Amino acid sequence: MEFFVERNDSFLFLRLSPGEDLIEGIKGACAEAGVEYGTITSCIGSLKKTSYTFVKANPENVTGIAYRDTIVSIEPNEVISGQGTVGKFDGKADVHLHALMCDVNGQLLAGHMMPGCLVCATMEISIAIARSGRMVREFDDVLRFPLFHFKKNN
Amino acid sequence: MEFFVERNDSFLFLRLSPGEDLIEGIKGACAEAGVEYGTITSCIGSLKKTSYTFVKANPENVTGIAYRDTIVSIEPNEVISGQGTVGKFDGKADVHLHALMCDVNGQLLAGHMMPGCLVCATMEISIAIARSGRMVREFDDVLRFPLFHFKKNN
Amino acid sequence: MEFFVERNDSFLFLRLSPGEDLIEGIKGACAEAGVEYGTITSCIGSLKKTSYTFVKANPENVTGIAYRDTIVSIEPNEVISGQGTVGKFDGKADVHLHALMCDVNGQLLAGHMMPGCLVCATMEISIAIARSGRMVREFDDVLRFPLFHFKKNN
Repeated sequence: MEFFVERNDSFLFLRLSPGEDLIEGIKGACAEAGVEYGTITSCIGSLKKTSYTFVKANPENVTGIAYRDTIVSIEPNEVISGQGTVGKFDGKADVHLHALMCDVNGQLLAGHMMPGCLVCATMEISIAIARSGRMVREFDDVLRFPLFHFKKNN
Repeated sequence: MEFFVERNDSFLFLRLSPGEDLIEGIKGACAEAGVEYGTITSCIGSLKKTSYTFVKANPENVTGIAYRDTIVSIEPNEVISGQGTVGKFDGKADVHLHALMCDVNGQLLAGHMMPGCLVCATMEISIAIARSGRMVREFDDVLRFPLFHFKKNN
Repeated sequence: MEFFVERNDSFLFLRLSPGEDLIEGIKGACAEAGVEYGTITSCIGSLKKTSYTFVKANPENVTGIAYRDTIVSIEPNEVISGQGTVGKFDGKADVHLHALMCDVNGQLLAGHMMPGCLVCATMEISIAIARSGRMVREFDDVLRFPLFHFKKNN
């Protein structure tokens, strides 16, 4: 893992190395850099193990959707893009990351990244740091799902 | 709608709630926050109504392309990524937003977002604020289409 | 080409015009603006010529993957998103750019952009500028491929 924070505290630039865990790597760099909140504005590279999910219809939920069981692939792929939110859930670091991947056959995979993704060759990430507010995940009683709220500091 | 602007005026962080209009929500937050120009650097969440278009071949245009009739879907989907430009057209707020979505069958939809998209569970957005220049949409006589120009302030 | 740098040196906002080369345009704007390092956080517009590649399986490499021969298309398409890294390789400007495109039939193309992409109608780009560190590409003896390293300034 290699990272640096911009002098004006605006961005965390991060590169993950082969074998590092994608979400744990982001959490680890943020913890070391003292970044609690922010937005993932880019994420390109490759994965050798991919763990993700995407929505299915679920008429029982108010939203009409629910996440599928996690899909795990050990075929390497290229990460075309990633965007997300860095914040807290129950006081602990939490990352919400969506990504698009292209596999070795040119098939596109996309969804909500789950724990367990491992970097193949590299992963180049940028995070816009939030200092004037907080992204806090809270259980939503209506949607029956924990969602990030964006809260301005007082 | 929940949002905050970074202390150094660099970023607007925005979360839209269920039922809010995607483009109107971005315009509304920018107006309240006093943001006229900038770039949408992330946009992830879900939509319950999606209104978008994508290019078709049109040899009559200099570019060789034109937009299709708007496609409207009321099937919920997940927004994997969104990028765009916030600026002005004829003096009014204007948003140019491209996005990638994954539907409940795992099919990917992508294109140019049109008015009328409604948030399903949430939408987490970051906007890099421009204060040293302006993004202004103007009708292009050659391409016969209004395009954003990026103008440095004097 | 039209661009401006934010007053706090945080972002380069760039618009490329019809016929301009995508990667050369990014390099050219960065050179004129004095930007050596950073992250491409958005890139939307259209291409009239597209040159790209994506991974294939290659069990001879440690990573298990290698890039295919470059694919060149002269059919126009819309660029849905682009993310990347701006840095140096052997002392010269170097751009690592991944993008997602939608062609005139609605087919999605995605991969690693190669030299020779030409803008169709427009390309709206934002680059988060790094001043506190450097992105430097170096040949990796294990992976047998040049990869960007993120190095904090001393």
